[in-house]
Amino acid sequence: MYVNKFSSKLLDNAVNEFAKLPGIGRKTALRLVLYLLRQDVEQVNMFGEAIIKLRNEVKHCKQCNNISDNDICEICSKPSRDHSLICVVESIKDVIAIENTNQYNGIYHVLGGIISPMDGIGPNDLKIDLLEQNVAKGDVKELIFALSTTMEGDTTNFFLYKKLNKYNVVMSTIARGVSIGDELEYTDELTLGRSIVNRTPFESSI
Amino acid sequence: MYVNKFSSKLLDNAVNEFAKLPGIGRKTALRLVLYLLRQDVEQVNMFGEAIIKLRNEVKHCKQCNNISDNDICEICSKPSRDHSLICVVESIKDVIAIENTNQYNGIYHVLGGIISPMDGIGPNDLKIDLLEQNVAKGDVKELIFALSTTMEGDTTNFFLYKKLNKYNVVMSTIARGVSIGDELEYTDELTLGRSIVNRTPFESSI
Repeated sequence: MYVNKFSSKLLDNAVNEFAKLPGIGRKTALRLVLYLLRQDVEQVNMFGEAIIKLRNEVKHCKQCNNISDNDICEICSKPSRDHSLICVVESIKDVIAIENTNQYNGIYHVLGGIISPMDGIGPNDLKIDLLEQNVAKGDVKELIFALSTTMEGDTTNFFLYKKLNKYNVVMSTIARGVSIGDELEYTDELTLGRSIVNRTPFESSI
Repeated sequence: MYVNKFSSKLLDNAVNEFAKLPGIGRKTALRLVLYLLRQDVEQVNMFGEAIIKLRNEVKHCKQCNNISDNDICEICSKPSRDHSLICVVESIKDVIAIENTNQYNGIYHVLGGIISPMDGIGPNDLKIDLLEQNVAKGDVKELIFALSTTMEGDTTNFFLYKKLNKYNVVMSTIARGVSIGDELEYTDELTLGRSIVNRTPFESSI
């Protein structure tokens, strides 16, 4: 079914807008729009307004670049969190993932991307200056780099290391190894190899 | 990754709204919302407004119940279309599918559903009265029932047949048979059986 012909311009517009979203084709867009048409007017207004409001009113935390309703985000403004420990991540998705582990009590720094020459993203496109400013203040003791284990992630790690090495701060990356619950047999050689090189003392792993 | 914790209420709202759409979970919702956050403000406003406008301003054609920007839809208001031939369909999706064949020059009647006691949908929930009014005017010569070949579709066909039989109108259903391009070997017995019973004279099929 080609969904290019509609008898209604309003319908056409709405389908076109939905179809611009990643992973949503015109068929799915039509399905979603027809679903919205069957909902209450208030419900649909809430949907549209939530999106408009988000884009117009959301801020980025002035300290860590995380998404926030206020100038300083909830995490940065909590006194109970360890402000001397900064976990450097690529995007807000990573903040959510780490927060969900309930294992981390430091604060974050959201770079907003990683260095990727292929995609035309250089160091100046990322919030690296803000990170350097924060580190330069002298209160930060440790930086944990939690970036993807890709060439781009490694490049970014290395760039940050070179840039921030002059400050008196410990820099580490998150541990790479065999996933919990994974069988050795099915683990790729690179990960298995690294997990042997970076083995941890038995006592500390329990 | 559980995506239940956000540092931003605005983000939370937008994700919740997206996650209400059918087939979209919280993870996909977050992905779409983060995508929208990276777009221009105007772009996102257009998206939100297209949806709100659609729901608030779209009308249903007073003649055929198709979706429309005006009181009478584009199809019904075209004088070149055969107004004595009505194709009865379940939803606007079917109108789009049939329009895309470029094989039909009559008008439509959109029931807005099919009779389905399991889902609590009875004849009164459908736009059957409107269809009867149109037929009662006497200008309609033929009704084509183009509903799904399910028990619900057959029930609706039968109900419409009983209700409209008193008027001087020919009623037919679309042909069921082996799909074009399908191999007989892989066609289900019911379809194959029906296609033999309802065989068409060779000359008319070319």
